[in-house]
Amino acid sequence: MLNFDMYMPARIVFGADTEKKIGELIKPYTKKVLLHYGGGSIKRTGLYDTVVKSLSDNNIDFVELGGVVPNPRLSLVHEGIKLCRDENVDLILAVGGGSAIDSAKAIAMGVYYDGDVWDMYEKRLPINKALPVAIILTIPAAGSESSGDTVISNEETGRKYGYGSPHLRPLISVMNPELFFTLPKNQIANGVADMMSHIFERYFTNTVNVDLTDGLCETTLRTIISNAPKLLENPEDYNAWAEIGFAGTVAHNGLLGMGREQDWACHNMEHELSAAYDVAHGAGLAVLTPAWMKYVYKDNIEMFAQFAINVMGVSKGLRDKEALVNEAIARLQEFYRRMGLPQTLEELGIDDSRLEEMAQKCTGFYYKQEGKIGGLKKLDWQDVLKIYKLAQ
Amino acid sequence: MLNFDMYMPARIVFGADTEKKIGELIKPYTKKVLLHYGGGSIKRTGLYDTVVKSLSDNNIDFVELGGVVPNPRLSLVHEGIKLCRDENVDLILAVGGGSAIDSAKAIAMGVYYDGDVWDMYEKRLPINKALPVAIILTIPAAGSESSGDTVISNEETGRKYGYGSPHLRPLISVMNPELFFTLPKNQIANGVADMMSHIFERYFTNTVNVDLTDGLCETTLRTIISNAPKLLENPEDYNAWAEIGFAGTVAHNGLLGMGREQDWACHNMEHELSAAYDVAHGAGLAVLTPAWMKYVYKDNIEMFAQFAINVMGVSKGLRDKEALVNEAIARLQEFYRRMGLPQTLEELGIDDSRLEEMAQKCTGFYYKQEGKIGGLKKLDWQDVLKIYKLAQ
Repeated sequence: MLNFDMYMPARIVFGADTEKKIGELIKPYTKKVLLHYGGGSIKRTGLYDTVVKSLSDNNIDFVELGGVVPNPRLSLVHEGIKLCRDENVDLILAVGGGSAIDSAKAIAMGVYYDGDVWDMYEKRLPINKALPVAIILTIPAAGSESSGDTVISNEETGRKYGYGSPHLRPLISVMNPELFFTLPKNQIANGVADMMSHIFERYFTNTVNVDLTDGLCETTLRTIISNAPKLLENPEDYNAWAEIGFAGTVAHNGLLGMGREQDWACHNMEHELSAAYDVAHGAGLAVLTPAWMKYVYKDNIEMFAQFAINVMGVSKGLRDKEALVNEAIARLQEFYRRMGLPQTLEELGIDDSRLEEMAQKCTGFYYKQEGKIGGLKKLDWQDVLKIYKLAQ
Repeated sequence: MLNFDMYMPARIVFGADTEKKIGELIKPYTKKVLLHYGGGSIKRTGLYDTVVKSLSDNNIDFVELGGVVPNPRLSLVHEGIKLCRDENVDLILAVGGGSAIDSAKAIAMGVYYDGDVWDMYEKRLPINKALPVAIILTIPAAGSESSGDTVISNEETGRKYGYGSPHLRPLISVMNPELFFTLPKNQIANGVADMMSHIFERYFTNTVNVDLTDGLCETTLRTIISNAPKLLENPEDYNAWAEIGFAGTVAHNGLLGMGREQDWACHNMEHELSAAYDVAHGAGLAVLTPAWMKYVYKDNIEMFAQFAINVMGVSKGLRDKEALVNEAIARLQEFYRRMGLPQTLEELGIDDSRLEEMAQKCTGFYYKQEGKIGGLKKLDWQDVLKIYKLAQ
């Protein structure tokens, strides 16, 4: 086990009707809120009215900024920063999924920075404060409701970068599984693929003597795999949503990766797909993850054999590790297929014209940096290109 | 799954040599520290000198109060409160196990209360602030390094009460598994029994649809059960200590009980043993837990069958639930025995002279309160008496 520093301060208020308490929950921390959200769905479902009523019942003033899109954009972040400064906002309330939350975090740190907040993403500048961010989660997927991470796309440069800081850990995240009932099936599936990937990125490691986090990763993955298909049958299955929603938070609050070298190659490779083709992050991960597994498993076949047995439930042929791992990867692909997720880059509408460019961008080679990605196996751009090709 | 409110802000700084950074870690939060600890062991091991050097290197002033004993006492808490006030202490640094930490938390809230801090324990008065508490953990067991709980014994009345508040969650807990190398075997065993009980109290429930926390509890228990015996073989097994130390924190930071009705009957029953006979908490739990299981399992045999299969690894005779559960309880007792833990009240030096009194005290009947304890099965004092007798 490696040394670690675990910090998970985000308070998670979970369960039916919890969104109605948002005003009461944030009242001790705010006088004026920026209400930040995406398209019109929260108005159609009535959630917007619920939130506004709760703020008003608690005498909390607010201004609002909607319009966050998937792969949230820097231009809207700039707008939010200006609005917060002009209106003396002291807390940002994001109502939405990972995009609204990531955008809120970008605004939260940008308010205190004189330059362009993109500097944080590009130059990794440290921050020492940010406005507090509270959340009502409407899409369980990104885990951004508990993490200190944010991913923003710069429309001008076409780049998509992540940034993380303990100062960006949310103050309070409210999660009512009932709010997920209206999600379309492709968003359910994309969310499930994303949270599973958050665990895979931590789970697949060369670090040994990590029994506890091995087990925590495995049981969280099993919970997702057994509950997610229920949602396609019945999108109003509260119990299944409760498991998936809670699992999505646990997947990304940091716990599961403590003491382990982490990987994150799949996330890095997927960010290029999203930046270049604006594909859904979860869908991209579902395509790339099995390809990545096929490319790297021989570098640590014992790790993948453990995955096969403890996560994918392969119980036969334990003596033939190679076959065991291939069976596990096939089962994972079958699970993604059952969830309605794409299997190939082609299904994502990605041809081979930009594969080399994306491989070079994601490892930094394109920008004249000497870069490799990944933990379990370090990948240069040629490796990444091979993985993209395996995923075609 | 029940609605829940999860709040785990304690930062855990984990691994080799981390105690040397204590001054640097707490420097942003303090000008003057109360260094609070137990007997002389931290002086013998050199830990005291390490801490003092780190404080001094970071220009942090301190006063000290040693003398915390197992089942920590109210009188020392009073002394600590006075010292903190007289010396304008702004942070308490507990160096020790659960007793030093619980004592530190009592002082931390007592400083801001005009009356006797025992009122919190006895009358459950709410608090709205406390001094920050930082920790260097020397005994993994109580989980107090991540929880907002404190248990104090009142020597005058012979009562031992717990109290909990989010304001008592530690600020920073430092855990270096190497500090556990010098623990005597009985303390290792008691600690292991205590952390397992923290999971049992959350795990055994009538709440259904809690797949994720079921699995998190089960894997944490399996990690403890597989690693603890290694410590008796080799008390300097860093890897095994890392698993046990981390598991002890996860066991009691709150996560494993989220969304579940919890039990806590064994802890309640054990607190009476500790209060009346000053027995080690973990030893008392090892005696009472199997007796409690035998008394209650029929009320939810499916829960105990799941425990048998998923925790104790019973794989045969799944059709006969009764036999399955009995085998699981026998295996748990065998594990405790292997750890050198006592099996009976008699081994703890407890005869039957005060069983009825303790049963009546722990349910409140003795104090003319209408009380039951437990969650999976509600126990009145006659039930508790039967469990004590089963443990004789």
